[in-house]
Amino acid sequence: MRVGELSNRSGVPVATIKFYVREGLLPPGDRTGPNQSDYGEPHLHRLRLVRALIDVGGLPVATVRAILAQVDAPEATLHLQLGKVQYALTAPRPATDDELAEVDAFLTRRDWTVRPSSPARSALAEVLGVMRTLGQDDLPVVVDRYADAVRPLAEAEVAALAARETVDAAVEGVVIGTVLGDRLLSALRRLAEEDVSTRLLNGGTPVVR
Amino acid sequence: MRVGELSNRSGVPVATIKFYVREGLLPPGDRTGPNQSDYGEPHLHRLRLVRALIDVGGLPVATVRAILAQVDAPEATLHLQLGKVQYALTAPRPATDDELAEVDAFLTRRDWTVRPSSPARSALAEVLGVMRTLGQDDLPVVVDRYADAVRPLAEAEVAALAARETVDAAVEGVVIGTVLGDRLLSALRRLAEEDVSTRLLNGGTPVVR
Repeated sequence: MRVGELSNRSGVPVATIKFYVREGLLPPGDRTGPNQSDYGEPHLHRLRLVRALIDVGGLPVATVRAILAQVDAPEATLHLQLGKVQYALTAPRPATDDELAEVDAFLTRRDWTVRPSSPARSALAEVLGVMRTLGQDDLPVVVDRYADAVRPLAEAEVAALAARETVDAAVEGVVIGTVLGDRLLSALRRLAEEDVSTRLLNGGTPVVR
Repeated sequence: MRVGELSNRSGVPVATIKFYVREGLLPPGDRTGPNQSDYGEPHLHRLRLVRALIDVGGLPVATVRAILAQVDAPEATLHLQLGKVQYALTAPRPATDDELAEVDAFLTRRDWTVRPSSPARSALAEVLGVMRTLGQDDLPVVVDRYADAVRPLAEAEVAALAARETVDAAVEGVVIGTVLGDRLLSALRRLAEEDVSTRLLNGGTPVVR
């Protein structure tokens, strides 16, 4: 298809598509003339993925480029490939040795196998440290409750990825599941909280605004 | 305490504390001399909250100021007060009428009472729309699974907030729980995924890097 059709089908302006090609987020189309290129379904697919990362994930172009480079570079096993992409999607955070030790104790207690280089390990360490500073004294209870909540999600997600027909489709699933999954959890938790607050604190009466 | 002690106890540099006072994120101390002010425990408390919002929440100063203004303005009921602060912490997102209708159908099906003005409603609508565009065809199953995961968290959170001794403490709990809770879920889901992937795809052998 021509760039105009790619634009129509994706809802992304032609100038933006050309920008993505220049920035290496989208492979160039096949040249069919001096000012004309031909794009295929894989371009449309990739373009939608780029938009999800930028618009919903709020990721800068340089980060998206780095993630897509990981997506496109094969690894020896599916486990390694999925892990590499998930790591690329997770920003490591500053954490002290004490905070990291608390995470490791938590992982040991839950019997979760996680590499020391996992950026999520430092992200959890930072959150635990801040919660302690803020005097949240029921912290271990809260963390276990959250861990119980995400465990079945993780099991369903990895099983669904492993069942996909191609490695590319599984890798794309990690990108989508990681970025959109965070947003989904965030929105749903707030909606559930409002419902619970309405029932528990407001006698079931919704407040109309 | 003097500003130097406030700095030592919070780990926030004096210049940054003075910046927060100028920007209205922290109330000024009591003037005790031409170049000297006295700060109390509430200042330390507020300062830690500001740091959590900026450092961990990644929120800009203007957003933090707007949130704190909501925190400090009382409402008629605890339900309204908690809701107002939670809304201030949630960025509304662009969504089409079709996407919002899908959210409303979901809320009706789950029997969750949520105001139409909830920013989380538009945030969920956007995620559902993007998932559809990306061809995730098992969407309703995924959303219900996520909703099942967050529901017990919301119930525990609202009950814990309602049990706090003062409205101020409950409101602070919403701020912390909303911002840090998102980070906690995000990090724990990734850690759980790595463990599940190690067991399911890598025969239980951790990959050492």
